[in-house]
Amino acid sequence: MAVRVVGFDGDDTLWHSETRFHVTQSEFRDLLKRHVPDADIDTRLAEMEMKNLSIYGYGVKSFTLSMIETAIELTEARIPAADVETILGWGKRMLMEPTALLDGVEETLRALAGRYDLLLITKGDLFDQESKLARSGLGEMFLGVEILSEKNVETYRGVFHRRGIKAEDFVMVGNSLRSDIVPVVALGAHAFHIPYEVTWHHENVPEDELPVQGWRPLSAIRELPAALEEL
Amino acid sequence: MAVRVVGFDGDDTLWHSETRFHVTQSEFRDLLKRHVPDADIDTRLAEMEMKNLSIYGYGVKSFTLSMIETAIELTEARIPAADVETILGWGKRMLMEPTALLDGVEETLRALAGRYDLLLITKGDLFDQESKLARSGLGEMFLGVEILSEKNVETYRGVFHRRGIKAEDFVMVGNSLRSDIVPVVALGAHAFHIPYEVTWHHENVPEDELPVQGWRPLSAIRELPAALEEL
Repeated sequence: MAVRVVGFDGDDTLWHSETRFHVTQSEFRDLLKRHVPDADIDTRLAEMEMKNLSIYGYGVKSFTLSMIETAIELTEARIPAADVETILGWGKRMLMEPTALLDGVEETLRALAGRYDLLLITKGDLFDQESKLARSGLGEMFLGVEILSEKNVETYRGVFHRRGIKAEDFVMVGNSLRSDIVPVVALGAHAFHIPYEVTWHHENVPEDELPVQGWRPLSAIRELPAALEEL
Repeated sequence: MAVRVVGFDGDDTLWHSETRFHVTQSEFRDLLKRHVPDADIDTRLAEMEMKNLSIYGYGVKSFTLSMIETAIELTEARIPAADVETILGWGKRMLMEPTALLDGVEETLRALAGRYDLLLITKGDLFDQESKLARSGLGEMFLGVEILSEKNVETYRGVFHRRGIKAEDFVMVGNSLRSDIVPVVALGAHAFHIPYEVTWHHENVPEDELPVQGWRPLSAIRELPAALEEL
C-alpha cells in the first residue's frame, strides 16, 4: 500500500476539545443543581443535544443554545436571566480559548508533512473550526482543509472526489470510531484510531458494528509515522 | 471574455433570507418593548451582532445568541426565562423554514447549467447553509458548493486555487456589494449585482469604495443569461 494522503481529524485528535465541554458541563450541573437539586441534568442535556442535532448541527453555539433550553425546561422557566447570561459567557469562553494541541502533534505533523499530503478533515461549526485552526499554528502544514457538517460515507466520498483521491492511497487518523474510522474503512481506505481521554457518547460505536480489518488503534500520535510506513 | 464558471451567492440571491431576519427582529422588538419601552432595540441588537461577529461568525444560531444577550442586557437581567424560550423558538423556526426560492431562480439556473459550470458560494453557518441547499432542490444543478466563513479577496482566491479557476473565466452573481462584488472584481473577475429588497447594513459599501468597472447591476436573475452572453 502506497499511502499518499493522510487525513486528520481536529477535535481531540490534534487539539483538546471534549474536555472543555466536560468542564463547562460540570459548571452547568452545579448552576442548575441550585434550582433543581434532584434533576438528572446530564441526561436531560444529552437528550436536548440529540433532539436539537438535526436543527443546530454540531459545535459550541449549538451546545450553548441547548444548555439554555435545558435550563429553562428543567426549572420550568424559573431560571433567572442572570444565569442565562452566565451560560452565554461559558459559550464565548469556549469559542475564544487558545487552541491547546495534544502532546506530540506538532512534531509528528512536521515529520509527516514532507512525505505525505496532509488534509484536515473536521466536522462541526465552520467558523469555530477555522478559528481554531488559525490559532493552532498548524495551518501551513496542511495541503487542504475540509470542514464537513457530518462525517459519513457520503461526505468522505465527496472529499475523495473533489480532491482526486483514490481510497487505497488514503489513511484517516482520528479519535472517533463513528466519524473517523467506520465510514473511511467502508470506502476501502485505511484508518488509525487514537482514543482520547474522554469520548462524547454520540461518537461511540457498538463493538459488533466495527469493521474487522482496515484499521487499528494507536496509543499516541507519535506512533503514526512508523505505522504509516508499515502499511 | 469566455465565461466558464458562474458563482452564485445563496442568501437573498437564490432564496429569501434577510426578510426572515427582519420578521424575527420585529417580533423581538415587540417582545422587548414590553419590558423596556424607551430602548432603541434595533440599534442595540445591531451593536451586539457586530460585537459578537468575531466570536460567533454569521448565521441564525449567532443571531439567536445575540438576541438573547441583548434582551438580558437591555432589561438588566429582568427578562423572564419564558421570553428567552420564545427567542429560542424563533431561532429554530428560522432554521427549519422551507427554503423559499426567489422568482426566476430555478428556470435561470436550469438554462445556465448546461452552458457553464455553476458553483454555489455562500457564507455563514455550514450546517444551516447545507440544510437550506438540500431543501431548495437546486443541489443537482451545482458542480460544487463552497461555504466560506467570510467572503473576501483571500477566500475567493482560495476557491479559485482549489478549483483551478482563472479569474478571467469567472463571474460572480450576488446581492451583496461587500461580499459578492468588491472582492471578486479586485481579483480580476467579473460580477453581477442583483439587489435584494432589503440589505443587512453590514453588507453595504460606501459608493466611493466601489470598483468603477468589472461589474454591473441587474434588476432580476432572469437577465443573467443574456448578460453573460454579452460579456
